[in-house]
Amino acid sequence: MGAARFLEGLVRVVPQKKITIVGNVGDDTEFYGLHVSPDLDIVTYTLAGLVDTAKGWGFRDDTFQCQQLLQTYGYRPWFNLGDRDLATHLFRTELLHKGKSLSNVTASIVSRLSLHVTLLPASDDQMQTHLVTRSGQMHFQEYMVKRKTHPQVSRVVFKGAKEARPAPNVIKSILNAEGVIVCPSNPIVSIGAILAVKGIRSALRKTKARVVAVSPIIAGKTVKGPADKLMKSMNVEASAFGVAYYYKDFLDTLIIDNEDRGLASRIQAIGIKSIAAQTLMKTVSDKIRLARLAVSEVHN
Amino acid sequence: MGAARFLEGLVRVVPQKKITIVGNVGDDTEFYGLHVSPDLDIVTYTLAGLVDTAKGWGFRDDTFQCQQLLQTYGYRPWFNLGDRDLATHLFRTELLHKGKSLSNVTASIVSRLSLHVTLLPASDDQMQTHLVTRSGQMHFQEYMVKRKTHPQVSRVVFKGAKEARPAPNVIKSILNAEGVIVCPSNPIVSIGAILAVKGIRSALRKTKARVVAVSPIIAGKTVKGPADKLMKSMNVEASAFGVAYYYKDFLDTLIIDNEDRGLASRIQAIGIKSIAAQTLMKTVSDKIRLARLAVSEVHN
Repeated sequence: MGAARFLEGLVRVVPQKKITIVGNVGDDTEFYGLHVSPDLDIVTYTLAGLVDTAKGWGFRDDTFQCQQLLQTYGYRPWFNLGDRDLATHLFRTELLHKGKSLSNVTASIVSRLSLHVTLLPASDDQMQTHLVTRSGQMHFQEYMVKRKTHPQVSRVVFKGAKEARPAPNVIKSILNAEGVIVCPSNPIVSIGAILAVKGIRSALRKTKARVVAVSPIIAGKTVKGPADKLMKSMNVEASAFGVAYYYKDFLDTLIIDNEDRGLASRIQAIGIKSIAAQTLMKTVSDKIRLARLAVSEVHN
Repeated sequence: MGAARFLEGLVRVVPQKKITIVGNVGDDTEFYGLHVSPDLDIVTYTLAGLVDTAKGWGFRDDTFQCQQLLQTYGYRPWFNLGDRDLATHLFRTELLHKGKSLSNVTASIVSRLSLHVTLLPASDDQMQTHLVTRSGQMHFQEYMVKRKTHPQVSRVVFKGAKEARPAPNVIKSILNAEGVIVCPSNPIVSIGAILAVKGIRSALRKTKARVVAVSPIIAGKTVKGPADKLMKSMNVEASAFGVAYYYKDFLDTLIIDNEDRGLASRIQAIGIKSIAAQTLMKTVSDKIRLARLAVSEVHN
C-alpha cells in the first residue's frame, strides 16, 4: 500500500520505462481456485489509476455480485474480490495453468493496463508468508484481512522461500540498477518476503547502486497496516531506527520523517545516513516530493 | 431451453424428489479456464427461479463487469457470462480441479440452489458436440452463439462420446423409472448428445417404463434454436414425424402439437402412438398442462 502510493509519485519523476519494481509474492494465495497476487495487483491497479482509493484495494466502482452468489455455494468470503477484479485473477490463473510463469503473466497484465514499468515478482516459485500466532499458523492475508491483525504473532515463516528462486532479471536488475529504492512497506512481511528469496538480499549488498529506503514508520507507528506490531513481535524496535537496523547490511540512506529527526544520530551510529523529510503522503504533490528526494539521493 | 421450460411445469405436477433429469453435457466447454455447463445450468437456474427469462439464459438481474474487464486482458467474449453466473462456474471448476466428478458437483449445485430434483449429467467424462460446417468444424456453442447458426452444417460429431461412460445412476434411473419423458429439446444435438453416450439409447430400448417424448417441432419449425435446421442437415425430416422417426427404436408415444394432427397416421405407421395437444408453452399453465399430459401418458 505504502509502496503503491510511493510509486505513484515515482512514475511522475522517472519515466516508467526506466523503473523496475520487484514485488512481493508472499501474500499470494488462492481463492475459489484463482491465483490472487494482492501486492502485484495493488501496484498495477494504482499505477493504472484504477484502484479504489477510498478502500485502498480493488477496482474503483467495482461490484460484488459474484462474491454474493458464491455464498450460495457455501463459500464464506473474507477476502473481497470484486467482479472487475476477478477478471485479473481469471486471466492470471488461466495463463498459469497453461504453463506461463508469474513473471510472464504479470508482464502481460502490466502491458494490458497500458503501463510501461517493469514489474517483477520476487519469485516465480510458490512461497507464502505465514505467521505463527497464538491462534495457530496462518497465511498473512488471513491474519491481515480475516483476523484483522488481532492474533498475537510470535514468528514469521516464509514458506517455500528457501526453495524459491528469484524470478528472471530480479538479481540482474538490482545489480545493474542506477539506484535502488526500498519503498515504505512493511519491513517484516512485505519487504521481508522479498529479502527472504535466496540471492536478493545479497544482491542488495553487492550492487554498486546506492540503496535508499523510505521508512514506513513515523513516530513509532505505521500509517496503515501492522508493520509496527510485527516489528515488535520480531524484537525489532518499531521505529525508523528499527527499520534502518533491519536493513543495515545493505542500506545506504534511510529517509525518515521530520518527526523522527531525533533518531538521526542513532541511525548514523550504525553506519546509515538519514534524511528527514515529510514522509506522510496525503496528496500527489507529497508523493512526487518524496519520490524526487529518494531519486536525488540514489544519484548522490 | 425447451427442456427447462417443460421441467418448470413438471416440478409442479410431480414432487421434485421423484424426478431424475439426465442432462446434456455435449455443450460443455471452457471459458477463461472455467468449466461451463450451459445445459445443466439452464435447468438449475430455471427450476430455482433465478433464470433471466427475457434472455433465456444466465441469471436474472446479472451484471457483466468481469466480462467487460476481461476485454482489457485481450479476451473477445462471445459467450456472455454474467458476474453472478461466474460464481457457478468458479464453484464447479474448483471442485472439478479437486477431483470431484461433474455428477458430484452438479448435485452440490442443485442442493445449494435448494432444489430437490436429481440432475445427472449424461456423462462425467469429457464429450463435446461439434458441428462440421462449411466454415470448418466447431463446438456447438460456437455455432450457436458466436456464429448465430449461420454456417451450413454437414455433420454432427460427438467428440469423446464413444469413450464417455454414462454417469453413475443414469442407466439405472432409466431402467427403473416409472416413466421416461424425453423433453422438447433439439433431437440432434441436445437429446442426440445424451443418446450418443454408450448404453443410454439401449437402456431406453430396454426399460419397461413407457417412453413419452414431446416434439420440439411445431408445423415444421422450432420455437427457438436450430433444431429444424440441423434435422434437415442430418437428412431427418424437420417435423414431428421426423422426431418420431429419429426416436423410433425406443419411443412409445410422441406428444405433437395440435397443428401437426395431420402427421398422426404417418407416426402411427412406424409403430408410435401420437397425442395432439397444445405444445407451445407460453404461460406456467401451458407448462403444467403439457407436463400433466406427459405424466398421465407414461402411466397409461
